[in-house]
Amino acid sequence: MDDSVTDGRVLKGNGTRQLILARTVQIASVEGLNGLSLGRLATELSISKSGVFALFGSKEELQLETVRAARGIFVREVVEPVRSEPDGLAKVVRLCDSWLDYSRRRVFSGGCFFFAASAEFDARPGRVRDELAKAAAAWEQGMADLLEAARVRGELREYADPEQIAFELISFMEAANANSVLHDDEAPYARAATAVRGRLRAAAEGVAVPGPLLR
Amino acid sequence: MDDSVTDGRVLKGNGTRQLILARTVQIASVEGLNGLSLGRLATELSISKSGVFALFGSKEELQLETVRAARGIFVREVVEPVRSEPDGLAKVVRLCDSWLDYSRRRVFSGGCFFFAASAEFDARPGRVRDELAKAAAAWEQGMADLLEAARVRGELREYADPEQIAFELISFMEAANANSVLHDDEAPYARAATAVRGRLRAAAEGVAVPGPLLR
Repeated sequence: MDDSVTDGRVLKGNGTRQLILARTVQIASVEGLNGLSLGRLATELSISKSGVFALFGSKEELQLETVRAARGIFVREVVEPVRSEPDGLAKVVRLCDSWLDYSRRRVFSGGCFFFAASAEFDARPGRVRDELAKAAAAWEQGMADLLEAARVRGELREYADPEQIAFELISFMEAANANSVLHDDEAPYARAATAVRGRLRAAAEGVAVPGPLLR
Repeated sequence: MDDSVTDGRVLKGNGTRQLILARTVQIASVEGLNGLSLGRLATELSISKSGVFALFGSKEELQLETVRAARGIFVREVVEPVRSEPDGLAKVVRLCDSWLDYSRRRVFSGGCFFFAASAEFDARPGRVRDELAKAAAAWEQGMADLLEAARVRGELREYADPEQIAFELISFMEAANANSVLHDDEAPYARAATAVRGRLRAAAEGVAVPGPLLR
């Protein structure tokens, strides 16, 4: 068997993998990562079950590859569109809007893939949860870094806490996604956009010291 | 068959139902409502499968009853402890703290039942999703009503939007639950408590009109 044949087979294998993963990210966003059975995929895609098994080896591997494929789509759809924007507060707002748009457009038919998959696996320790936790941590850190850059530029108050604000902004986005999918409603996206702007405004302008009631 | 026998059997049936539902709410919070199979429950509880079937009729009915049972637990653990508090801003803070405490204590072993179940069923139209959407809407409305009461009492600015603020407070709580379960970490609860207080402070004291950047 010469190299070109081997390459042809590898390419065919990679093409099939991509085809399968394009389907599994969609299934998982609606029915969960546990909805991915090798047998079902084989039937849906008219591939032999042993063929699917040869490509992924196990259901867990298929789930892990699905998470990685979803991460690639997330970066392309959410992060890339704002990458050329200079660091600062405007970029934070654009990134949040980009995220809300990604959820609203149903890039994944069940809404944000990571919201669904994390809620499904958060209480099940293992490699899939670790992969999801890694993706969540990277997203939170990226948001906090952008907020820190805005603070250093003087666009947020000196004492603003980038990690706290990142937590809050991401909370709004995920709640918008969850409410929109649950209630088949677009209104939560406007709520989240309002919330993001209100929170950043408060961080830019400062708020007074709380009274005893709120301590 | 006289009435006492009938009653005895009904009572026995109700006792078994409660026993089963106490178990299913826990399973569902970790593995999802779709993890509830009649066969598995029969095995775990050493009841015949036909006995489980006779009590619930179908997997969907079992899922619906599980959601209703979880709602009862939620009301008991989150709402009851603050019910006697007079309406106002302090009650809002206490209710949020009560929710965070319910999640932190792992009343449901997988964290908030409703967060997990809603994320699982949000993209699957049907009676289970409808039941979850109803529970979510009641919780959001209750929070908005409390905030409106605080506004009317003059504890929030006249122009404060109770539904917007309710959305934001609930976002913080759900994100704390999600992050805590995913990362096995208690720190997100402190983040959420800080966020709740910061948001209410902003609504009590008002913030300036945003500049063009944030529009």
